[in-house]
Amino acid sequence: MGSYAMPPTLRFLLAARRSELHGLETLASTCELATRVSKLAHVLQKERGCSNLYLCGGQDTLRQTLAGLSSDASAVEEEVRRFLDRLEPDVTRSAGKARLLNCVAYALYRLDELPRLRGRIRDRRVVAEEAGAAFTKLIASLFALVFEAADSSLDAGVTQLLVALLNFMQGKELCGQERAHGVMGYTAGFFTEPQKARLLELADLQKRCFDGFAQCAAPDALAAWEQLAPGAGQVQRLRDMVLRTSDAARVDAGLAEVWFGVCTERIDAMRAVESLLAEALTLQCHRRIVETRAELDNHRLLLNRFADQARDDAPAMLFKLQGRILDVPPEDGVGEEMERSILDLMREQALRLRQSDDALALARGALEERKRVERAKWLLVSRYGVSEQAAHDRLQRAAMDQRRSLDEIARQVLIELEAAS
Amino acid sequence: MGSYAMPPTLRFLLAARRSELHGLETLASTCELATRVSKLAHVLQKERGCSNLYLCGGQDTLRQTLAGLSSDASAVEEEVRRFLDRLEPDVTRSAGKARLLNCVAYALYRLDELPRLRGRIRDRRVVAEEAGAAFTKLIASLFALVFEAADSSLDAGVTQLLVALLNFMQGKELCGQERAHGVMGYTAGFFTEPQKARLLELADLQKRCFDGFAQCAAPDALAAWEQLAPGAGQVQRLRDMVLRTSDAARVDAGLAEVWFGVCTERIDAMRAVESLLAEALTLQCHRRIVETRAELDNHRLLLNRFADQARDDAPAMLFKLQGRILDVPPEDGVGEEMERSILDLMREQALRLRQSDDALALARGALEERKRVERAKWLLVSRYGVSEQAAHDRLQRAAMDQRRSLDEIARQVLIELEAAS
Repeated sequence: MGSYAMPPTLRFLLAARRSELHGLETLASTCELATRVSKLAHVLQKERGCSNLYLCGGQDTLRQTLAGLSSDASAVEEEVRRFLDRLEPDVTRSAGKARLLNCVAYALYRLDELPRLRGRIRDRRVVAEEAGAAFTKLIASLFALVFEAADSSLDAGVTQLLVALLNFMQGKELCGQERAHGVMGYTAGFFTEPQKARLLELADLQKRCFDGFAQCAAPDALAAWEQLAPGAGQVQRLRDMVLRTSDAARVDAGLAEVWFGVCTERIDAMRAVESLLAEALTLQCHRRIVETRAELDNHRLLLNRFADQARDDAPAMLFKLQGRILDVPPEDGVGEEMERSILDLMREQALRLRQSDDALALARGALEERKRVERAKWLLVSRYGVSEQAAHDRLQRAAMDQRRSLDEIARQVLIELEAAS
Repeated sequence: MGSYAMPPTLRFLLAARRSELHGLETLASTCELATRVSKLAHVLQKERGCSNLYLCGGQDTLRQTLAGLSSDASAVEEEVRRFLDRLEPDVTRSAGKARLLNCVAYALYRLDELPRLRGRIRDRRVVAEEAGAAFTKLIASLFALVFEAADSSLDAGVTQLLVALLNFMQGKELCGQERAHGVMGYTAGFFTEPQKARLLELADLQKRCFDGFAQCAAPDALAAWEQLAPGAGQVQRLRDMVLRTSDAARVDAGLAEVWFGVCTERIDAMRAVESLLAEALTLQCHRRIVETRAELDNHRLLLNRFADQARDDAPAMLFKLQGRILDVPPEDGVGEEMERSILDLMREQALRLRQSDDALALARGALEERKRVERAKWLLVSRYGVSEQAAHDRLQRAAMDQRRSLDEIARQVLIELEAAS
């Protein structure tokens, strides 16, 4: 019996499950995009690092390495582009994907600029800072994509893993930025006070990201992460050395390559953790789809029998049914028992939705926080006409001065400025 | 040129607008469902009121009126069911509609019970309280549907109107409950102290709902609402009389019909305001769809020309284009100018999305508050095994004792209980 012969009540009960399944399938594609994008960000980080070394007075022999890294990145980029082409028709037909699609457009725009940038790097027609900044903008556009993926998830487990991935990617990106800053200082032989302060800040921000990752990662990713501790020790020793340098106390410029090597080894090792996170994400999506499909099939079977029963009044059939739902044989008033079971089913479904909503609200905590900080920042930009960076600095300074979290400051700004609007 | 011949960046920029349009079209259907459901709730409220009067010792002649009201309600129910049948395939294919569909199933389940209830009322085989409670449950299931419609809206303007409609429906429903309570007391000739307290509470809750409505309604609905003030005065005089009654100071039982008449006139007049709200909602959806479709067409035209330009390098064409976007003629470096314009377009789109997100967050305030109170309530239920009603009472009592809003209490409960989990 097709579900269209069912009474409307049961049909809509089934339709609710189908909508859930559909949502999970869309989410699985978005997650695949996120993991592909994390891989692209990784190879671009490597290319940025090597470009930086090359532009900071590295040997011409590096040009070969650089060409290899560029071609690696292009290959991954090509995969991402092909995946996007397949994804496009589906996503466009879905509501509420405007933000994600806009992020895709922006990331593609930045990727389109890449060939020209690479030419300028090869010919040393661009300074290290500018090239680094261009790569960093591109990588940030990829992160924004992963953020939107997390923001569109309606499954608590998936959201949690995406938040873990985002935190980890962000921490690793900060390691990459730290590597670039270190190369510049070590190449010069010493670090200025602002450079030292920036390095300390980058180390501090890294710690916060990795703490955030540790809060929501699965045990195997955590275990893999803990195995990276020795590499962190090496980096720390070179960080400590940075603080002892000055114009009067220079170190050998060759340390730039040592620093680069140590950092790179650590970052590459981090990629293994990132891959574990990506795998966990794929697995979780798959598991939820399989579960939901099985529940849908069970549901359909059950409701078909209800519908048959409603027509044929076959108590024997109902008995089996009752056993499955309530685990008690039906007593008198067969019709009422059946109705009560449908109601139970409906309540159970409503309860499950409510619980998954609660879990989602919890998992989204970190995302909501980031969105609040963004909203507060842009409110400052539009209200006072300051730059994005200035607004961000202002929030951060307020948090430090008042010894409160950035989120608390953002909440306060939102309350004050929105009340005044 | 079809959009598939476009460079991917431009294609995804267009896809973002198409997703927005698709979202608005789905939203328009959901809003139509909400307005149809508000009409159904209204006729059911009338039927409940008349049933109550009939069961509270009303004349047998009322049976004819009751039959008329039942058949009115059935006609509206039939329209809603037909609309749902048309809606089903679309909604089921959309992600994130599980909650809405579950609400539909539950409302249909309650509607299926209606014929039996009507028979019992006609034969006076049910007491007024029980019949009233059954109708109230059904009407609450319809309200839940409107709430889910509001909760799924991604358009700030539509959300605001749905919140206004919800508040108004809720206020009107409380008037209906007040009418039923009043009929019971006036029929008995006096009100007990708990009955008086309940009536005062219902009047207070009504005020809060209508204040909420007034905060987000359009001017014409507000003006229509203000014209209902005289009717409110009549109700108030009869409310005041309630307080002066007691076992020792009875009033004529005939006042039950007077009270019923005055309340009914006011509630019917309220339906006119509700209809204005529903019209405003339909208009808003339509306006946003027309706007977005026009923007999409413009966008498509513009991007097609960009794409042509990228291939043919036709500066004249680009000149016209530049004029449209930037209102300045291109200078040197035509290619760069074009790129800058695409970037402008992308920024503009991102800015618009951010602004509409901010507006949505503001408009959702009332919904988020209600969801928080619900979450806190269910957390109490699951943590302490109390009933839903007891949990609700506990929150309300805490709010009164601490002179804080229900929302503040809910926030605190969520922080404390979730931290402990």
